[in-house]
Amino acid sequence: MQSTKYSIGIDFGTESARTVLVRVDNGEEVATSVYEYKDGVIDEFIPGTNIKLEPEWALQNPLDYLEALKQTIPDVLNKSKISPEDIIGMGIDFTSCTMLPIDKEGTPLCMRDEYRHNPHSWVKLWKHHAAQPEADKINQVARERKESFLLRYGGKYSSEWFFSKALQILNEAPKIYEAADRLIEGADWIVLQLSGEEKRNSCTAGYKALWDHEKGFPSREFFRALNPRFENIIDEKMSRNIYSLGERAGGLTSKMASITGLREGTAVATGNVDAHVSVPAATVTGPGKMVMIMGTSICHMMVDKNLHLVPGMCGVVKEGILPEYYGYEAGQSSVGDIFAWFVRNCVPSDYFKEANKRGVNVHRILEEKASSLKVGESGLLALDWWNGNRSVLVDAGLSGLLLGTTLETKPEEIYRALIEATAFGTYKIINTFEENKVKVEKLYACGGLPERNKLLMQIYADVTGRKIKIAASSQTPALGSAMFGAVAAGKDNGGYDNIIEAVKNMAHLKKESFMPNEENHRLYQKIYAEYEKLHNYFGRGENKVMKKLKKIKKEIKR
Amino acid sequence: MQSTKYSIGIDFGTESARTVLVRVDNGEEVATSVYEYKDGVIDEFIPGTNIKLEPEWALQNPLDYLEALKQTIPDVLNKSKISPEDIIGMGIDFTSCTMLPIDKEGTPLCMRDEYRHNPHSWVKLWKHHAAQPEADKINQVARERKESFLLRYGGKYSSEWFFSKALQILNEAPKIYEAADRLIEGADWIVLQLSGEEKRNSCTAGYKALWDHEKGFPSREFFRALNPRFENIIDEKMSRNIYSLGERAGGLTSKMASITGLREGTAVATGNVDAHVSVPAATVTGPGKMVMIMGTSICHMMVDKNLHLVPGMCGVVKEGILPEYYGYEAGQSSVGDIFAWFVRNCVPSDYFKEANKRGVNVHRILEEKASSLKVGESGLLALDWWNGNRSVLVDAGLSGLLLGTTLETKPEEIYRALIEATAFGTYKIINTFEENKVKVEKLYACGGLPERNKLLMQIYADVTGRKIKIAASSQTPALGSAMFGAVAAGKDNGGYDNIIEAVKNMAHLKKESFMPNEENHRLYQKIYAEYEKLHNYFGRGENKVMKKLKKIKKEIKR
Repeated sequence: MQSTKYSIGIDFGTESARTVLVRVDNGEEVATSVYEYKDGVIDEFIPGTNIKLEPEWALQNPLDYLEALKQTIPDVLNKSKISPEDIIGMGIDFTSCTMLPIDKEGTPLCMRDEYRHNPHSWVKLWKHHAAQPEADKINQVARERKESFLLRYGGKYSSEWFFSKALQILNEAPKIYEAADRLIEGADWIVLQLSGEEKRNSCTAGYKALWDHEKGFPSREFFRALNPRFENIIDEKMSRNIYSLGERAGGLTSKMASITGLREGTAVATGNVDAHVSVPAATVTGPGKMVMIMGTSICHMMVDKNLHLVPGMCGVVKEGILPEYYGYEAGQSSVGDIFAWFVRNCVPSDYFKEANKRGVNVHRILEEKASSLKVGESGLLALDWWNGNRSVLVDAGLSGLLLGTTLETKPEEIYRALIEATAFGTYKIINTFEENKVKVEKLYACGGLPERNKLLMQIYADVTGRKIKIAASSQTPALGSAMFGAVAAGKDNGGYDNIIEAVKNMAHLKKESFMPNEENHRLYQKIYAEYEKLHNYFGRGENKVMKKLKKIKKEIKR
Repeated sequence: MQSTKYSIGIDFGTESARTVLVRVDNGEEVATSVYEYKDGVIDEFIPGTNIKLEPEWALQNPLDYLEALKQTIPDVLNKSKISPEDIIGMGIDFTSCTMLPIDKEGTPLCMRDEYRHNPHSWVKLWKHHAAQPEADKINQVARERKESFLLRYGGKYSSEWFFSKALQILNEAPKIYEAADRLIEGADWIVLQLSGEEKRNSCTAGYKALWDHEKGFPSREFFRALNPRFENIIDEKMSRNIYSLGERAGGLTSKMASITGLREGTAVATGNVDAHVSVPAATVTGPGKMVMIMGTSICHMMVDKNLHLVPGMCGVVKEGILPEYYGYEAGQSSVGDIFAWFVRNCVPSDYFKEANKRGVNVHRILEEKASSLKVGESGLLALDWWNGNRSVLVDAGLSGLLLGTTLETKPEEIYRALIEATAFGTYKIINTFEENKVKVEKLYACGGLPERNKLLMQIYADVTGRKIKIAASSQTPALGSAMFGAVAAGKDNGGYDNIIEAVKNMAHLKKESFMPNEENHRLYQKIYAEYEKLHNYFGRGENKVMKKLKKIKKEIKR
């Protein structure tokens, strides 16, 4: 009898990395380890210096990533007492687009003394927002040149994405741009560290760097129009070789084997992105099923056999989520963040007192009180745009709205209206997919919110009129990465031939799911009609008051 | 040398009555006494019974009014040591429309055992809102008959007003209607108690009972169309003799003299209404000057030589405020109420802790923090319709709105936005007056808010671009009533010939006033343009979402 095999998944998040050791035959999570990054999000000073960063900057230190490997892998080995011989593969997922300049040897420029004082030598984190002028330029040039790729990204290239950040380096620090042998996604850099192989993945290439499975990258002419020195960025600083998810990038190097305690040659999968890797981890391997990764924000992930241009999605990429399928990503830019804002700023002390007395979180108190309200009873309606609208309006300049307040309005009524507003936002995304021929039959949820707030899940079921199943794992990205690690190892080594097979064995759902209440759905349809009317009125340019107020505010601040 | 003369003013409010003893020569308030009504606002059970009231009902006990006279007048006499011989007159003001059925002797039916168990025998307080079906009927019939009087009341007769309440008595308790010798305003009933004379005043008759200085009451045909038994309400239950403000209704009866300690025959002025009597008490005796009585709500009072039909005002009545002038009333149905709601429901505990630590009210903390914000800095905009909109939309079905929220929005920013919204509401009223040929050159404020919130007053000055003067008295209604008492006494008795002379001597302003900041006004004009756009969009029928949500809510509750 063969011994039980294991795989490791590592989820590199914004503040920390989380590693799980998983049984390959049944997906059981045997051990977990979390490492909080020492430098975390760098948005004030370059570490160890008094060099101040401009507003909107957000950097990271790549040493934090290496330290995460060094700490968490030995930790899960130690906790589980599993032999490294039985660990057949590993996979990683990363925030994205999080990118950095490296030298010929793969060393980040920020780790070299001659460059470390230049902020542009560091890792630009996904939420580095200082490349907006570059994004504007990219959008302007793409529109002028009638580049068709914009349609695959909801009509707008983001300041968070790869070429915005790369162009900012060229514009503001040409010497760093020149010194960089390559510019690379964090996900691909970690794979390079682990395996010694630079095998860029199709997910980040597709969603963040305009790569298309058939057409490759945009033309040299396009890049030249942005800046003559940018013309050959793909060939000079990147690579045209893009690898599918779950491919074996290489075997663990002897150096990394000795650092981590794993066996040299352990299969390393190509890199992936947290939201995308969650799809198979939530058991989804085909069309009609939307996976919602629900936390501070929501990512809505879908796959389909065909390419449909759905307005306002974040991107559609062939093989960007699963082999053979087009992968669709849409999103809401603030969900849990809105409830956290509400609790911080708008909840009277009585509610906290009650929470303290009962030893529960104040969210629980609000949830209980909000649960006793019937649909429509608050008379409130909100637009969930506290952090702008990602899908389907793709407009960061929008802001939140609350309507229907009276002298009798209670905090729990506002809390419920905010939950409902985010559910309406998701429903709008679902409807937009369906109006554009991408069927959304069932919903699958993972992330922090489904575990914490049952009222919220019921409201989502009632608003969308769809059953919602919940992923069994509380760390779906790390589990998904471990699943891709098992695929990279391959069947002959005790893993799987493909991700579909891995899903069958390793991914699970909770028994509990949320069924829509038909009467509530009928009532929510009425209220949603009002939501949609406000959504279109304020979101599609008829009344630009939100932007005008932001403009006035910006002028004041100067 | 003649001895110094005094006058007494009594302000009958919603929860209490307030009496001031005032020097006639200079308006000095020598003594004050407050009496809290024992039964207050009766909205659950008829006193001394287990007879439950329907929702929306609000009654009062007339014994509370008599007790107020009995307690407060001896109290001010005692405190001031003024001889009753030197008290030449008295005036009263009352909430309105607050009305009651009385018998031939003037005794309220609720004070008679055979009627007291019927809720309709009691005083219907101004905020009794159960006569909405009757108000709807009155409006429907008036529109069908093309009655021109509706135009003088912003196009709509209110459920709070006299005939709505009278018709409800007839519809629901015909025996009480029949048993009532007369139906009378509280203001006129008190004057009847004091002087033995039923001399109905032109203010409540004009603003609440459709009486017009030239045309009198509506026709018998109109009343018959409401209900055949209502045809002769004026002649059977009321009076066509209406008396001007400041007229001597009569002299204090010997009975009331012995109860109050005042001299028999002391001049008693005709009754008045709290908001209206504040106009001369705030020194205003002519056109171009708007008096704002600022508290839980705001009343906006104006006089003009000519009749202009200003859309959305509460009413225009010849001699309704001052002799010879048309008196205009407009209003906002919630102002201080909104801030109180906000503090009760939306302010986190840190703010209360800071307030406690410093021994101040939490409003002060919010005011301080909001003061440090520049105009436009919050990026927020609100519609001040938490309790519907009185002027200029005359629509109780509207509700509040807050727009522009982000994850960085702070409580003090919302607080300031709410203040600004109420200032925009006042500005809308001012502009509507001016667009209809009633000039509003200067603003005068009285009531509780101006003393408590300087930021609010400065915002009102900045938004409206107008200087705001503040009445010196903190109890302008009672002072105004005392002034009319001095007029009722007449010059020969040490009083005045008319209210203009009384104002010259008895009414004063504070030295402090609020000057508009021109730069702030310029910026507020921009934001007000956005307010107005939302005001018209949600308030004039283009988007009926507020009413639809209320309708859904109402259906749920059943």
